[in-house]
Amino acid sequence: MLLSKLVCERTKEAPQDARIKSHILLARAGYIKQVAAGIYSLTPPAQRMSKKIQEIIREEMNAIDGQEVLFPVVMPREMWEESGRYTSIGQEMVRFKDRTGHDMLLGMTHEEAAVHMARHIVSSYNQLPCMIYQIQTKFRDEARSRGGLIRVREFTMKDAYSFHVSQEDLDRYYRRAYDAYYRIFRRIGLKNFTDFKSDTGMMGGSVAHEFMLVTPAGEDTLVFCDGCDYRANMEVAECKGEVLPRKEMPLELVNTGSAATIEEVCSLLKTEKSRSIKAVVYAVRGDSSKIVVAFVRGDREVNEAKLKKAVGLDVAPYDGGVTEEIACGNIGPIGLSERIIKVFDRSLKGATGMIAGANKPEYHYIGLDAERDLSGVEFKDIAKVAEGDVCPVCGGRLRIENGIEIGNIFQLGTKYTAAMNMTVHAEDGSSFNPIMGCYGIGVGRAIASVAEESNDENGLILPVTVAPWQVHLIVLRPDKEEIKAVGDKVCAELEAAGIEVLYDERDCAAGIKFADADLMGMPIRIVLSPRTLADGEAEVKLRRGGEAMRVKTDALVEKASELIALLKREIEETL
Amino acid sequence: MLLSKLVCERTKEAPQDARIKSHILLARAGYIKQVAAGIYSLTPPAQRMSKKIQEIIREEMNAIDGQEVLFPVVMPREMWEESGRYTSIGQEMVRFKDRTGHDMLLGMTHEEAAVHMARHIVSSYNQLPCMIYQIQTKFRDEARSRGGLIRVREFTMKDAYSFHVSQEDLDRYYRRAYDAYYRIFRRIGLKNFTDFKSDTGMMGGSVAHEFMLVTPAGEDTLVFCDGCDYRANMEVAECKGEVLPRKEMPLELVNTGSAATIEEVCSLLKTEKSRSIKAVVYAVRGDSSKIVVAFVRGDREVNEAKLKKAVGLDVAPYDGGVTEEIACGNIGPIGLSERIIKVFDRSLKGATGMIAGANKPEYHYIGLDAERDLSGVEFKDIAKVAEGDVCPVCGGRLRIENGIEIGNIFQLGTKYTAAMNMTVHAEDGSSFNPIMGCYGIGVGRAIASVAEESNDENGLILPVTVAPWQVHLIVLRPDKEEIKAVGDKVCAELEAAGIEVLYDERDCAAGIKFADADLMGMPIRIVLSPRTLADGEAEVKLRRGGEAMRVKTDALVEKASELIALLKREIEETL
Repeated sequence: MLLSKLVCERTKEAPQDARIKSHILLARAGYIKQVAAGIYSLTPPAQRMSKKIQEIIREEMNAIDGQEVLFPVVMPREMWEESGRYTSIGQEMVRFKDRTGHDMLLGMTHEEAAVHMARHIVSSYNQLPCMIYQIQTKFRDEARSRGGLIRVREFTMKDAYSFHVSQEDLDRYYRRAYDAYYRIFRRIGLKNFTDFKSDTGMMGGSVAHEFMLVTPAGEDTLVFCDGCDYRANMEVAECKGEVLPRKEMPLELVNTGSAATIEEVCSLLKTEKSRSIKAVVYAVRGDSSKIVVAFVRGDREVNEAKLKKAVGLDVAPYDGGVTEEIACGNIGPIGLSERIIKVFDRSLKGATGMIAGANKPEYHYIGLDAERDLSGVEFKDIAKVAEGDVCPVCGGRLRIENGIEIGNIFQLGTKYTAAMNMTVHAEDGSSFNPIMGCYGIGVGRAIASVAEESNDENGLILPVTVAPWQVHLIVLRPDKEEIKAVGDKVCAELEAAGIEVLYDERDCAAGIKFADADLMGMPIRIVLSPRTLADGEAEVKLRRGGEAMRVKTDALVEKASELIALLKREIEETL
Repeated sequence: MLLSKLVCERTKEAPQDARIKSHILLARAGYIKQVAAGIYSLTPPAQRMSKKIQEIIREEMNAIDGQEVLFPVVMPREMWEESGRYTSIGQEMVRFKDRTGHDMLLGMTHEEAAVHMARHIVSSYNQLPCMIYQIQTKFRDEARSRGGLIRVREFTMKDAYSFHVSQEDLDRYYRRAYDAYYRIFRRIGLKNFTDFKSDTGMMGGSVAHEFMLVTPAGEDTLVFCDGCDYRANMEVAECKGEVLPRKEMPLELVNTGSAATIEEVCSLLKTEKSRSIKAVVYAVRGDSSKIVVAFVRGDREVNEAKLKKAVGLDVAPYDGGVTEEIACGNIGPIGLSERIIKVFDRSLKGATGMIAGANKPEYHYIGLDAERDLSGVEFKDIAKVAEGDVCPVCGGRLRIENGIEIGNIFQLGTKYTAAMNMTVHAEDGSSFNPIMGCYGIGVGRAIASVAEESNDENGLILPVTVAPWQVHLIVLRPDKEEIKAVGDKVCAELEAAGIEVLYDERDCAAGIKFADADLMGMPIRIVLSPRTLADGEAEVKLRRGGEAMRVKTDALVEKASELIALLKREIEETL
């Protein structure tokens, strides 16, 4: 491919809203072009990357007996009424009426379509297990798309759905899918990633894992133990909680004047924040009159995901202003209205000598003893893990990092097969709803993840397995006919040997050419210049660094093949 | 692939609405599954076909210097406002508001997206010509989807867009695309197809060609000359018109009583229909008060597409009831209100002795002489070609057939580049809007076209280049362990040799297995049975017919390879 003809423009400036490396570099290298918020076109290099990633995914899905199918992007309301998700999913699902007034929607996931295809066709236990998958466009109307291809509204996704006779069979298959995911991510060249047991969220079901690339650019927060292999997404990470030494005091009401925040009150009373009780007010989503107050130790934060699970309600931070029940800022556990749902964090269990709001202006309690003064209270794990906390497994210290979700796998149970009435004959003649698993990978996010992890200050450093081209061939001074002729010949020879070449034969400054090569990130760079050609040689260099090699022009095919094999082998060795 | 595990169900019954062979067979063979009107899922065999067709298209697009990209399915209104098509395209384009209230649409074609990508990136004449293409899902809200994959609402399409410095350059490239299209259709195994110069319709531009599969199932009407290579889509086919012998008569008003239709009047007056003038009433779409009357010879029909072109207005058959101006059924050219737009077909030029409505109840004129009695009238070509008509080129006889559009190519001119302000620097430093071409092929329709053309009463007969698997391997009596073992071994050997095998190892009646193999249509069938295996042999047969061959089981890889090569060669020889 001639770089001069490539529909791809490199720029010095990144888009104004680009904050993370993958967004900046993919935009600057001309790989992506924004069409609307969270909607991008892929230019030829990105589409080549996308197709290579898709092919790796396809090979690994086929290797675990997946059958590729195609579901529609546009689906009718009825199918989603069957599963109940037409109403349970919110604004992130696009709904529209077709020309006949029929309610349609854009697929953001395809459990319904998978069951629609499999039911009737898969009718006997001996057809199980089976797995169908597709690689198709999806649309999810994200409220806050950002980060280039990291969080978009339209995306290409591989989604797979498996059907099973029993939980044991799903467990077996789920393990194969899990292993396939490791292979996929390693084959596309990702390095620092791992899996996390996760919440199943709107998908239903029980067990689930998300695969996370560990990177400062990630929007997920991850918890790792330095002492054992405990790791968890912040949303579900368990707080062990440490009980502070006992501090015997009577419960006493004190005037704290206008001190309102935990900081102000503790400072006034000359106490550590860990000896105070923080109250955080939430309201049930969709019913702001239903108030939930979460109590945690003053030096802790509430983990909203865990709080929701603990109360079994979808809550959001309260923003309804002052009501009769939470009339003043000094909210505390003693004397708070019965109508308010109260949740106590595990960090308060056994706590003594605590400061807490007295539910009246200018007053706090001191000396609160949770066991003595809060009768019949149940303590739940609703606090956020903090850096340096105690590991719930080994007692080691926890470390916090950021991550990007690069894939997820779910055990769905019979949620969809039961709701959509997919039944299969068992060996004994009875019939049952098969158990499902589902498995997703976003292709665009995989491109971004590779870019996020593999780069330096000059641009992308793409893994050989997914780089649009394997070799970036530069000819300097192509205005000299004899030089250009060698460049053309080398390009033709490399291509004849099956090597993918991006050939920069533009008549422009060497600096521009080198900068473009660095920015675009092909793994191998070959430079032909009057200086090297005087010795009948070219300069060969790996994009990731290392020494530049002088290679005879007639040995370039051999050298390039050797380097490609080396780079591929390095990746294969990680499998 | 084990047939027993394949997610694909064969049925005896076709869907109730299936009228044409491809729909019936693709549904019965379990290749497609309907999700909603005009929306289908593809099961694994159809998806395999789709991917093979896509790969052939991709190879041919790359061979004419195409660069694969990906445009979004969902696009913002603004982009389509630039081209003017946001308002000019009707209900067939789905529009919706996203969660922020922004107007979005589903792409049914991507000229806007192509120009959006190319402008700025392609900024100099020496980057031209260039062509970008994608293979992507599109949605067109067809009022009448039908025929299985023939006319759907959601479809996978290859759409390509080229940019040029001059009309000459476009002409050159257009010819390459035209040739590539012939190669693509031949490579996917289509036989009886040809191209037609066509109207450009809503795409704008001037020259266009549509590629048509000639088949009774087609919804397009095609005109062929048996004497020369003249051929045209009925919509644009020219009527030569033959002038009947002169018949000198005075113009006279006669009472025709209640006779209303051409048949009744001609029968009453004992005259041939060709000596009468038929009036067909139309109204301008969107303004039913604006009436157009088309006059054609009584034995002719009006060609609506040509009429629209002749009057330069979008008209539809009039259904507004009786008005003052067309008060009675006896509409004729003499005395008809000035307010009505009148169009005279070429078949009336020089016509003599004609019967025509007199615009009053119970009366017709006879003896009308078009030149004598209709002063200042211009005759235009607005009639439909009929079987046996005179060829406008050679004077031979015309024949009419049906066809399915399998692809189209358009010269777009600067319609989109000018509207969307894409400018490129010329060699002389000036700037210009590049000239565009666009090139489409529907992948699903290609699957249906192959099925429509290649079948017999028992099922599909798929070309080796696009069949989901090359070999359909059947083992009879797999309940006998030693037989099943041979089957498994043969399957493994074929697959190890890179041959794609659908392996039917189900323990069911031979009749079911043969019927499934015929229905599903793999080109080569291999049967292992106790009878053939007694001689250490298998039976090998081409799906299209011919003799069954006995082949030693250890020679099956060789025989299958040979047959695959033969079938591939037959297709290559058509290129």
